[in-house]
Amino acid sequence: MDKIQQLKKHLADVVHLQHAAALLGWDQQCYMPHGGGAARAEQLAVLSRLAHEKFTADKTGKLLQAAAAEVKDRPYDSDEAALVRVAQHDYDLATRIPTALVEEIARVTSQAHEVWAKARQDKRFADFAPMLERIFDLMRQQAQALGYKDRMYDALLDQYEPNMKTADVERVFTELRGELVPFVAAVFERLDKVDTRPVHLDYELAKQEKFGMMVIKKLGYDLNRGRQDRAVHPFTTNFSTNDVRITTRYMKNYMPTALFGSIHEAGHAMYEQGSSQALEGTILAGGTSLGVHESQSRLWENVVGRSRGFWKHFYPSLQKMYPKQLGSIDMETFYRAINFVSRSLIRVEADEVTYNLHVMLRFEMENALLEGKLAVKDAPDAWNSKMQAYLGITPPNDAEGILQDVHWSSGLVGYFPTYSLGTFLSLQYWEKALKDVPSIPADIEKGNFSTLLGWLNQNIHQHGRKYWPAELTQRVTGESLQIQPFMRYLKAKYSEIYGL
Amino acid sequence: MDKIQQLKKHLADVVHLQHAAALLGWDQQCYMPHGGGAARAEQLAVLSRLAHEKFTADKTGKLLQAAAAEVKDRPYDSDEAALVRVAQHDYDLATRIPTALVEEIARVTSQAHEVWAKARQDKRFADFAPMLERIFDLMRQQAQALGYKDRMYDALLDQYEPNMKTADVERVFTELRGELVPFVAAVFERLDKVDTRPVHLDYELAKQEKFGMMVIKKLGYDLNRGRQDRAVHPFTTNFSTNDVRITTRYMKNYMPTALFGSIHEAGHAMYEQGSSQALEGTILAGGTSLGVHESQSRLWENVVGRSRGFWKHFYPSLQKMYPKQLGSIDMETFYRAINFVSRSLIRVEADEVTYNLHVMLRFEMENALLEGKLAVKDAPDAWNSKMQAYLGITPPNDAEGILQDVHWSSGLVGYFPTYSLGTFLSLQYWEKALKDVPSIPADIEKGNFSTLLGWLNQNIHQHGRKYWPAELTQRVTGESLQIQPFMRYLKAKYSEIYGL
Repeated sequence: MDKIQQLKKHLADVVHLQHAAALLGWDQQCYMPHGGGAARAEQLAVLSRLAHEKFTADKTGKLLQAAAAEVKDRPYDSDEAALVRVAQHDYDLATRIPTALVEEIARVTSQAHEVWAKARQDKRFADFAPMLERIFDLMRQQAQALGYKDRMYDALLDQYEPNMKTADVERVFTELRGELVPFVAAVFERLDKVDTRPVHLDYELAKQEKFGMMVIKKLGYDLNRGRQDRAVHPFTTNFSTNDVRITTRYMKNYMPTALFGSIHEAGHAMYEQGSSQALEGTILAGGTSLGVHESQSRLWENVVGRSRGFWKHFYPSLQKMYPKQLGSIDMETFYRAINFVSRSLIRVEADEVTYNLHVMLRFEMENALLEGKLAVKDAPDAWNSKMQAYLGITPPNDAEGILQDVHWSSGLVGYFPTYSLGTFLSLQYWEKALKDVPSIPADIEKGNFSTLLGWLNQNIHQHGRKYWPAELTQRVTGESLQIQPFMRYLKAKYSEIYGL
Repeated sequence: MDKIQQLKKHLADVVHLQHAAALLGWDQQCYMPHGGGAARAEQLAVLSRLAHEKFTADKTGKLLQAAAAEVKDRPYDSDEAALVRVAQHDYDLATRIPTALVEEIARVTSQAHEVWAKARQDKRFADFAPMLERIFDLMRQQAQALGYKDRMYDALLDQYEPNMKTADVERVFTELRGELVPFVAAVFERLDKVDTRPVHLDYELAKQEKFGMMVIKKLGYDLNRGRQDRAVHPFTTNFSTNDVRITTRYMKNYMPTALFGSIHEAGHAMYEQGSSQALEGTILAGGTSLGVHESQSRLWENVVGRSRGFWKHFYPSLQKMYPKQLGSIDMETFYRAINFVSRSLIRVEADEVTYNLHVMLRFEMENALLEGKLAVKDAPDAWNSKMQAYLGITPPNDAEGILQDVHWSSGLVGYFPTYSLGTFLSLQYWEKALKDVPSIPADIEKGNFSTLLGWLNQNIHQHGRKYWPAELTQRVTGESLQIQPFMRYLKAKYSEIYGL
């Protein structure tokens, strides 16, 4: 067997173990009875440990070396060269963090999760503060182990968005802040221009499910290679390019949660499903970064799913399904309602206009905490003043403020910026897609999503992890990361809706 | 750490890998989209290989030796002594079969499954014959590798029913044949005494599901530590003592399939759930053999679920659920209908009276084929004449005869007798339970199943694999395997139903 085949075979075991673990995680969130929890934690621990051991074994390093020599004359974008390149990158990351630190992070974040949940319930940041102190300390150790040139945050960010630098994020956020904050303020002056009642009607769950399934199927989510189940927290997971599953949750009196949640997750899922079959079972299958992944989910959820053209096609079916609720509401009113802006307290419930402000705030907080420029004890005040400055609102308590979500207690520092990077990328890709295939908006109005999906498959999905995010964006758009496409889109859409 | 702890820790990895594989199997049959099949096969192969490698590693042998020395003064029924004893047994079995043979069996049976399915569809045994030849050849090699004293079949049987000997099975089947065959013939004379129409009415599926769930919950299947899903083939599987799942399937015009299927699987599941929590995560958790497992499923399905007392309690609810179908049918008529006897062609559809004849036939066929006393080419004729002799019917074709089920193509030779052993044991245990707790039948009539389940938990379930099947039966009943309790039950019940 040649060296590249040996490497592939060795890595396949790791991939299969990771996919098995992912299925255990899926089941845990969708179907596992309560009693199964303790054993499931053990099973997941064993699978993760074995996958990690196999991947970080000396054998991997040796196979990589041998394979690298074998592929050195292959073109950069050949599957073989890409496999060696990406595997080497992953191997370097995985072997740099000492096992003791990996275990310590797992132990502390496992405890931290419970402490956080309790503190949040009691609305007492002080109870979580010592844990947060400990976590940021571990994050600093992790960053040291991973290594960085300029900023400590670079090391953490790189795990989620390979090669992205803190300075790049700061550059785009600075540009964003200058344009977005005044625009948000202007919209906030006119919030009463949109009637939000249409999204809060009595929407029977079974019909929501039926409508949502019809929509994501039509978008192009392949249900022969996927399925949708219910879970408390919506997510996408996969155990193969040909088994990519999503979850959603339903709220009777708030339709957007399930529908736009399903479209969002289907966006992630179509990216995974679109990986070239040649990459199946290798580490190259699947999305190249969290940012690019988020570009797909947010493109489908917002740019497509909350567009006028989309609803020109789907609104009559929805009206027919809910005649009592929507019979007397015209499409234009409905369109404005699903795009309502508010002084949102949390990213997951934020509209398109305020969404990135939450990310910017978190990015600034994380950097300041990591670099010791902000003390943990002062963090709630810092959080609250940033909320006031960016969103014109102060959280009524820490539960809705600094304790609002799970990221920090899970040790996910450096992860948050990818939400915004994805948002910006979604509009860069969208502008390019429209340039290449001008019929896309008209196709969407006709309920034909295949021209858009086809373009995404061709330009983004099929490559899997073969290109780093910035490389991919450069190949696709000819540019680096830009916020202008997003700002153009946002201003045009919301100036019209709010009459600015 | 002491040696026994080291052994436990080492074996826990194996148990967790096996449980992870079991979850992958469960998902495959319940929820996996079609596209996931190819990757799933690879994932299962990796998990099985890793579990097998870990278990058969020299390390296991060394840990076993050290642990054996450590526990040599512990009482026979201590958890520690049992763990070492059972692990040594499993280790000996697993290390005796060369890896090459394991792989060859996996390869051939994987091919054989498709060949069998096609041959069965085409009703052509000749197409399957070469595969069957090959499989019995591999089974002989397997028996040689495992080793045996008297009969080749002993080695195969022992995998499913530890320490059970072919001669013992022959003894009970000879005794059975003498009593059962004439009794069956007498019942066959009077088949028209039972009106079978009540089981063939129009039973709405959602109501069947609701009723079935209500029943198994009331029997004592703990849904905080289990769940029921739909699958083409009903089965029980578990990933912990505290996560034991069952599946069932529904037929609109034949109620018994789902209901008695659910009760049967719940019987298996309650055995698994009843394992002592002290054994959780060790190889001692769960049923001690397929035969004892089947004693539990058949006890609940037949001795309880098809009894008059059971329906005295449940029939009014069923009537209320299906007033149009059952309103004018009295309980006595319904009771007889669910106990109807027929000239069944296949075990899975057989009633209690004819069930064991199918098993006896298969046991005889397997022995003759294995020992070369019957040539594969002559097997269909042998099958058909036995069917005629035992059941008074000749299969219309090989699809409904020798090709009827999956066992041989899956390499499951030596497995079949456990279905009957379980049936006999179920009545031995039942008689003893009634002796110890005479109120059980009256409790069942009142819908109180806790006295029976409590007795089973106390005497059988809690022990997990600590005792070999014959030991367990001896401890519980003071006797070895006997068919008389079963024959007494059968004759009393069916003589009354058929007016013999």
